[in-house]
Amino acid sequence: MEEVYAGLPFPARETRPYVLVNMVASLDGKASAGGKAGAIGSLIDRALMRILRARADAVMTGARTLRAEKLTLAVPRDLARSRASRGLKPQPLAVLVTGSGEVPLDENLTGASSDNLLVLASPEIPRERLAYLSSRAAVEVLPEIRRKEPKGRHTGLRLDLEGALEVLKKRYAVDVLLVEGGPTLNHAFVVDGLADELFLTLAPKLVGGSRPENITVLEGPPLPPRAADPNLLSVYLSGDELFLRYALRPAGPG
Amino acid sequence: MEEVYAGLPFPARETRPYVLVNMVASLDGKASAGGKAGAIGSLIDRALMRILRARADAVMTGARTLRAEKLTLAVPRDLARSRASRGLKPQPLAVLVTGSGEVPLDENLTGASSDNLLVLASPEIPRERLAYLSSRAAVEVLPEIRRKEPKGRHTGLRLDLEGALEVLKKRYAVDVLLVEGGPTLNHAFVVDGLADELFLTLAPKLVGGSRPENITVLEGPPLPPRAADPNLLSVYLSGDELFLRYALRPAGPG
Repeated sequence: MEEVYAGLPFPARETRPYVLVNMVASLDGKASAGGKAGAIGSLIDRALMRILRARADAVMTGARTLRAEKLTLAVPRDLARSRASRGLKPQPLAVLVTGSGEVPLDENLTGASSDNLLVLASPEIPRERLAYLSSRAAVEVLPEIRRKEPKGRHTGLRLDLEGALEVLKKRYAVDVLLVEGGPTLNHAFVVDGLADELFLTLAPKLVGGSRPENITVLEGPPLPPRAADPNLLSVYLSGDELFLRYALRPAGPG
Repeated sequence: MEEVYAGLPFPARETRPYVLVNMVASLDGKASAGGKAGAIGSLIDRALMRILRARADAVMTGARTLRAEKLTLAVPRDLARSRASRGLKPQPLAVLVTGSGEVPLDENLTGASSDNLLVLASPEIPRERLAYLSSRAAVEVLPEIRRKEPKGRHTGLRLDLEGALEVLKKRYAVDVLLVEGGPTLNHAFVVDGLADELFLTLAPKLVGGSRPENITVLEGPPLPPRAADPNLLSVYLSGDELFLRYALRPAGPG
């Protein structure tokens, strides 16, 4: 089962990375239980997550996801070796996105070395936070964009994602970017038409609950009717768990 | 495609109906968009929904779902004929569940005759509402159960579902009950261990948004870890849409 995503060819884009989003959800659409994503997927799901990481030049997650639980964005040793045989660095670049600067790198991020860690930060972050982050990672401060949003709703992310992707491509040579949430970051990628594929694991669970603990795969305002037009590329079954791959056709120019 | 659920055998239970739950969800777990479920599934999904109705002795929905949009719980003429050949009445009994008594039968329910319509009502409903409902449907007033819930959370349904199912079996000869939501009613069935199967259509859409407009398949407090243990029985694919059938193994005695 673990090999199913290992050989996928991902096309190159000229001005930005090719973007994969990988998430796991329960049958009732919950991507986390009790505030944690780790409770939903199986060991096979986690193995496939690592296979996808092994295919990516960079792995991105939102700072809120890192605040919620200890995690690594790295791959184990055997996959690091297989990366080398493809001409990739042993580990993908770990990329964290933050609007607040609250990124518990020391506390919650494991397996990342400072020379392989990038923080994409909003210009509103206080200087002492930036200094702390810069002592542990490369930091790129990106302009904020205020999105037009229905009253009372917030995406929680107003970073210029398109600009961020150009920086990743030009300065960090990222051709394939894997986004692992959280749901607010996923939503921003979809709204901006910047997500090329969705890898969705459908776990045979019913979770219940609601925000903020039990969130869905996308958290943000309602999307325009055809913001994405998912096209099912493959279905794999392991036990009672489904592994789905969709091409997303963004409304905007890619 | 339409025939895939037509021949399924559903086992008989002694004291209550065998309960199927049928829902459609987007890839991001939303069972409605802009407050309406009709926006998510395809024509094939709607055809399969009617096939399942044709297999059921009764079709149940929550009054909130009926308040949200015009709907029918009936089957078209050709399926009504196929029911007769199985020894079923031409139309399944239409069952509405209400705690408030606000059931817009005249405005939003189409295709149901008063001799084939049952309202399961809480005892707190004002007498004049009950009189109105009784003029249009059979009405069964059932005891309320106050569920133990985490503070500040409400299921919105406190009807004695197990009692309701016994009434359906004994007085209305319902062997197979199809529950079509809403998510609060689904949640109550799962929490009480009374849902035997889940038919879940996974529509190739990304919807975004959140409650109250864009709800998930289950709305209610977090479920205990093994409240249901879904077992995937079948997967059908039509276009980019997946039709999934799960057995739910309730924690409690069945």
